[in-house]
Amino acid sequence: MHHELAATVMARCDELAAISAERHGLTRPAYTPALRAAHTLVTGWMRSAGMTVYEDAAGNLVGSYPANRSAARTLIIGSHLDTVRDAGRYDGTLGVLVAIAAIEALQRQELRMAYGIDVVAFADEEGLRFGHSFTGSLALTGRLTPEVLQINDADGVSLAEALHAFGGDPEMLAQDARRADDLVGYLEIHIEQGPLLEAQDLPLGVVSAIAGASHCQLTFSGTAGHAGTVPMELRHDALAGAAQFALAVETIARTTPDLVATVGELTPHPGASNVIAGQATLSLDVRHQDDDMRAQALHELQSRAAAIAQSRGLHLTWEDRQQWATVRMSPHFREQLRQAVQAVGYTPIELPSGAGHDAGILAEFTQAGMLFVRCQGGISHHPSEAVAVEDVAAALKVVEQFLMQV
Amino acid sequence: MHHELAATVMARCDELAAISAERHGLTRPAYTPALRAAHTLVTGWMRSAGMTVYEDAAGNLVGSYPANRSAARTLIIGSHLDTVRDAGRYDGTLGVLVAIAAIEALQRQELRMAYGIDVVAFADEEGLRFGHSFTGSLALTGRLTPEVLQINDADGVSLAEALHAFGGDPEMLAQDARRADDLVGYLEIHIEQGPLLEAQDLPLGVVSAIAGASHCQLTFSGTAGHAGTVPMELRHDALAGAAQFALAVETIARTTPDLVATVGELTPHPGASNVIAGQATLSLDVRHQDDDMRAQALHELQSRAAAIAQSRGLHLTWEDRQQWATVRMSPHFREQLRQAVQAVGYTPIELPSGAGHDAGILAEFTQAGMLFVRCQGGISHHPSEAVAVEDVAAALKVVEQFLMQV
Repeated sequence: MHHELAATVMARCDELAAISAERHGLTRPAYTPALRAAHTLVTGWMRSAGMTVYEDAAGNLVGSYPANRSAARTLIIGSHLDTVRDAGRYDGTLGVLVAIAAIEALQRQELRMAYGIDVVAFADEEGLRFGHSFTGSLALTGRLTPEVLQINDADGVSLAEALHAFGGDPEMLAQDARRADDLVGYLEIHIEQGPLLEAQDLPLGVVSAIAGASHCQLTFSGTAGHAGTVPMELRHDALAGAAQFALAVETIARTTPDLVATVGELTPHPGASNVIAGQATLSLDVRHQDDDMRAQALHELQSRAAAIAQSRGLHLTWEDRQQWATVRMSPHFREQLRQAVQAVGYTPIELPSGAGHDAGILAEFTQAGMLFVRCQGGISHHPSEAVAVEDVAAALKVVEQFLMQV
Repeated sequence: MHHELAATVMARCDELAAISAERHGLTRPAYTPALRAAHTLVTGWMRSAGMTVYEDAAGNLVGSYPANRSAARTLIIGSHLDTVRDAGRYDGTLGVLVAIAAIEALQRQELRMAYGIDVVAFADEEGLRFGHSFTGSLALTGRLTPEVLQINDADGVSLAEALHAFGGDPEMLAQDARRADDLVGYLEIHIEQGPLLEAQDLPLGVVSAIAGASHCQLTFSGTAGHAGTVPMELRHDALAGAAQFALAVETIARTTPDLVATVGELTPHPGASNVIAGQATLSLDVRHQDDDMRAQALHELQSRAAAIAQSRGLHLTWEDRQQWATVRMSPHFREQLRQAVQAVGYTPIELPSGAGHDAGILAEFTQAGMLFVRCQGGISHHPSEAVAVEDVAAALKVVEQFLMQV
């Protein structure tokens, strides 16, 4: 049964991969028609697995599988269906579909637990559209701050407007938030997005902690000018300043153990081949499992940015967009997951997550655990993301075992 | 009269500055509804000045002022109405409007010359939309190569399609080209776009030559990946490679006398804050008045780009988009312009142009001359472009003097 369900999960990942906001590749930003289409498809699968389905005020898709008694608490098994740009088909999606398959397995065995199970596809985990991640899980745990609703996307549409157009209700977020007392806890299944499990030849790993991260946005402002007429010594080239900073980020990250730091966006303005850029905006993503080390790196990067701006006669604005501290998974759920992995027949290992997850938000609200599934080459956020159907079957077995134990 | 006409030119520059393809600032790319609106407005002004107006197959707007006899040759006075992104209001536009004002002055005096005068607003001088400059003047001189018509804009629209939609005719370009024998020559009035005239306290300058330039496009390709999970030492970050090259461009230009080199565009892909860029494309603009020096700099830059790609495990593609050799203005027209400047009462000085102009294309086809008008701070390609109405009046006087002499 597990292998057949795993094959269904793989086929469904393929089916969802065709639902994109762009003609080429998989790009499914939050609160878009593409995400709506994905929700519609997944709703059908949830219903087939015996769940009642609704969307909460934040646009999170929820499939509820009832407990064997009334007034029971609820275990949430979640992940997300929104993606980065030009994404792979397993990041997020796999976790939602393994959860649905696990419920399908319970239904086939006519099993109900002493707790209800809500499978949740969180809205806007990746933050592609608004530059703000974990919107859905923050809302579900009652911690989405109202300012976030005012963030605009590239077309000037605010998150509140987008949520409303999607069918959510910005006014009802607080009322729709869960109460921690009502929950058993939170479980998330996700691809590893790193090379560790592959290196150890293991299909699964138990997450110990999610590394803290800081997202910042920098803008260097100089003076635009004609590329042919302004002598080099009179230039205040914002793009050159941004390029120098991007290289400094790389150098500092390379020389600081376990630090990763990334400039993934860089937009010069006006952005024409024959115009010296008067402005350049770039993103900065800094992560470390030691929050003090991360703070220290950020401090060093700020000094470097200021020094670059000063030496070039540029103006610098530095905006802290979002940050989260390192979050440890619940000791009890970690233990339960390790036991489940062992019971199914694999060596139980623990590993940290370099990527952020909704589990990091939930871990500050209820007990949370996370199961990693090996992915090929550790590659994620890329069309070549790949997982093996055998590893998905193993994950399903572990989830089933976990549900019996917990 | 000259001052009144100059004031009209200034007011018309303001009026045209409001016609933009974007909500904020002046951006008027080739063959767009915004350029159509500008042509409509300018057509009215041409007609008021006594010209018959048409558009040729390349979308160049032509206002013809007849000679005082039949079978006369034609002097073209031209510049352009398309702009860069977030442009100033005088680059190109001033030249077209001064030409119209000069014709207006002739009409008021009921003067016709022994030659006809065509005022031409060339299509797509800046190359913003298709990354290919001087499309209109190349077509008018019969030198637009057919491959150029296949270049796509960012939305996948080819130049041929855009020209057709604008009302031009890609099939008729060759037939619509001028014959050099039919021309007296070419005159262009343009803002200096550099700080030299201001430094010498002179309103006008005669252009000696237009510096040669090379436009290239580079793409570094590496491996996209998750910003939180791929260790620094395993990355092939295309954006970091592009940033390193942009800095190398600046360094080489700074250390090579009279060389200017600019990276004005840089686009990482996928371009998300939490994704390592798998690809980064950038523009390169290199100019020098000595063609050998330019070739040598390009060679050095190519070596640097290849070395950067090699050291980072990136793949590099280098595409030569467009280049033009240094072009000297016609000795006769230079002499005539110097005499006209002197006759009007200013010290006649010559200076080279660091920017490319349609005059550079025309100079290889007929005798060509160019008159520079002082601009504030030498600033161009920027909303703060500014010229003084007195300088525009001076330019008008010189053009009128030139028309009498030539």
